[in-house]
Amino acid sequence: MICSMLNIKYPILQAGMAGGPTTPELVAEVSEAGALGTLGAGYMTPQQIEVALREIHQLTQSPIAVNLFLPQTYECHEKTSLAMQQHLNTYRVKLGISEIHDIPNMSDLFEEQLATVIEAGVKIVSFTFDAPTKRIVEKLHASEIIVIATATSVKEAVQLESNGVDLIVAQGAEAGGHRGTFLNVENESMIGTMALVPQVVDAVSCPVVAAGGIMDGRGMAAALALGASAVQLGTAFLTVKESGANNIHKEAILTSTDTDTKITKAFSGKSARGFKNKMMVDLESRIGDDLPPYPLQHVLTSDIRKEAAKQGNKEMMSMWAGQASGLAQVRSARNLVENLVGQCDEALQRATLR
Amino acid sequence: MICSMLNIKYPILQAGMAGGPTTPELVAEVSEAGALGTLGAGYMTPQQIEVALREIHQLTQSPIAVNLFLPQTYECHEKTSLAMQQHLNTYRVKLGISEIHDIPNMSDLFEEQLATVIEAGVKIVSFTFDAPTKRIVEKLHASEIIVIATATSVKEAVQLESNGVDLIVAQGAEAGGHRGTFLNVENESMIGTMALVPQVVDAVSCPVVAAGGIMDGRGMAAALALGASAVQLGTAFLTVKESGANNIHKEAILTSTDTDTKITKAFSGKSARGFKNKMMVDLESRIGDDLPPYPLQHVLTSDIRKEAAKQGNKEMMSMWAGQASGLAQVRSARNLVENLVGQCDEALQRATLR
Repeated sequence: MICSMLNIKYPILQAGMAGGPTTPELVAEVSEAGALGTLGAGYMTPQQIEVALREIHQLTQSPIAVNLFLPQTYECHEKTSLAMQQHLNTYRVKLGISEIHDIPNMSDLFEEQLATVIEAGVKIVSFTFDAPTKRIVEKLHASEIIVIATATSVKEAVQLESNGVDLIVAQGAEAGGHRGTFLNVENESMIGTMALVPQVVDAVSCPVVAAGGIMDGRGMAAALALGASAVQLGTAFLTVKESGANNIHKEAILTSTDTDTKITKAFSGKSARGFKNKMMVDLESRIGDDLPPYPLQHVLTSDIRKEAAKQGNKEMMSMWAGQASGLAQVRSARNLVENLVGQCDEALQRATLR
Repeated sequence: MICSMLNIKYPILQAGMAGGPTTPELVAEVSEAGALGTLGAGYMTPQQIEVALREIHQLTQSPIAVNLFLPQTYECHEKTSLAMQQHLNTYRVKLGISEIHDIPNMSDLFEEQLATVIEAGVKIVSFTFDAPTKRIVEKLHASEIIVIATATSVKEAVQLESNGVDLIVAQGAEAGGHRGTFLNVENESMIGTMALVPQVVDAVSCPVVAAGGIMDGRGMAAALALGASAVQLGTAFLTVKESGANNIHKEAILTSTDTDTKITKAFSGKSARGFKNKMMVDLESRIGDDLPPYPLQHVLTSDIRKEAAKQGNKEMMSMWAGQASGLAQVRSARNLVENLVGQCDEALQRATLR
């Protein structure tokens, strides 16, 4: 049902991870393998999106999705931003890059990003960080685009459905990267996938995609048993050959254990799950009034994290990963998709024969 | 396999919840229905355990288990305990019960509890809050008793197995009540069931019981698909007819939503998941140096929580519940067990036919 709706073979979505992992090769190969590849375009300029989509469309005729971040309003005292900028200069000095003494201009590219995606003929768009307004949903529906959005609680899922969203990703607390939470953000409930999915399934009538802690066919089988119509995997796709994730990041995932991740606002000003490192610990000690909010903190730390990744310094990068990252493997995207499907069937059969 | 090991019909364990819910009627009826009933004896005196086991054995010949808390060492300044005691007197005044001005004697009943359980012929004993030592495991094995213990991380599970434990309960972050964490307690990773279970299954060779967020047959099916050999449910059994949980507590569960619970040390000094209320918020503001550790804080707040429960004052009780408590129903224990099995089969079949 979800497969015919999205015109894919297997009920598997590759998460639209922003910041580089979702290369055109990854997105295209995931879709070629029968799942849904997603371009993580949250931080991309309209021009970058246009180029990436052109490359993807040269590699595959299968459906793909684009993920965008809904715009966030924020307030921050200049004093706080400048103090953070100054503190971050100690990192820049260590990395040997230019210090920065002012606050960057924050331009919101959302409307232009969205226009580019529609223009390029993409037929599935997913959103994170908020409920797309009815206006946005109607606009996309008018272009026959399917709208996906992320919820981390039943209340958020209900709001997404009432705004007209076609598919809801129920993101459990296990998930790596940014939390999609948009209601009661300062007092998050961190609901685990096992508890969240059946409650969301009961509360909405549109199909639900389970996300968070799913790394293999066992997780896929579990999610479908909970009532999800499909699964979304992020971390599992980070270590595949086509992924654009940094090698340090891939290595950290492949050697990780279950207790290595933590939810932090340190890197971006918004809660996200990643591996603990020195920069996380240091910046967390400044949380509260001293930490600029998302997306400002994201922009402030951005040059440092990019340079650290380039230098292979894992103590100054953000390395997003979910709580089951230890199950990741090096393989091709196609191999991951095919293994998910095969193991899922085996897991269901084994469970039935218990 | 786990069923023949425990001599039960269905791979379902009722959690050994301490403090009253596991009445002899509940334990016996769960076992009569083909699952494993468990007496939550953590806070019971040896005499109370003896009486309860006698009642249970009059009601059923089927196997039952007893859950005990492994003894905890702790340190607390008298000043801290007395300050808490004084603060708690404001609660006692509101409830109209006697103020207390000294610190109760803490006697550790563990060895006597264990001796009572062995003496009574119980054949399955489960432990929480630590790894039972090899000495304890050997002692129980010598009496042909199966040993179960709880882990909240892969590392804990590996330690339990190396100590000789026969069955490991993998408790995900969704679970209600006390966390079984015993390693790295101050920096808990809060691993969700979906991520924890497959990683524990891969790391140990003994059977794994999934716990946390499982409320119905969908959750049971999901847990089995993840590789668990059985499931353990706590919250789902709190609202059954035979449960000894307070009516206020039952009502809170039945009317709850997914975001109503929180992990807190407020009531007992040890992390546990329960419904947010005024006492939790008030005592949490004292966490740090000012909150006595478990089991002292448990004992200090005990009279207040009991009296509040009696008076129907839900703002001064601890009401443990998991993140999927909203799925609870009023029914008999037998009906719950039978529904779990039937729905589990349906969920697996539906997932297979996706």
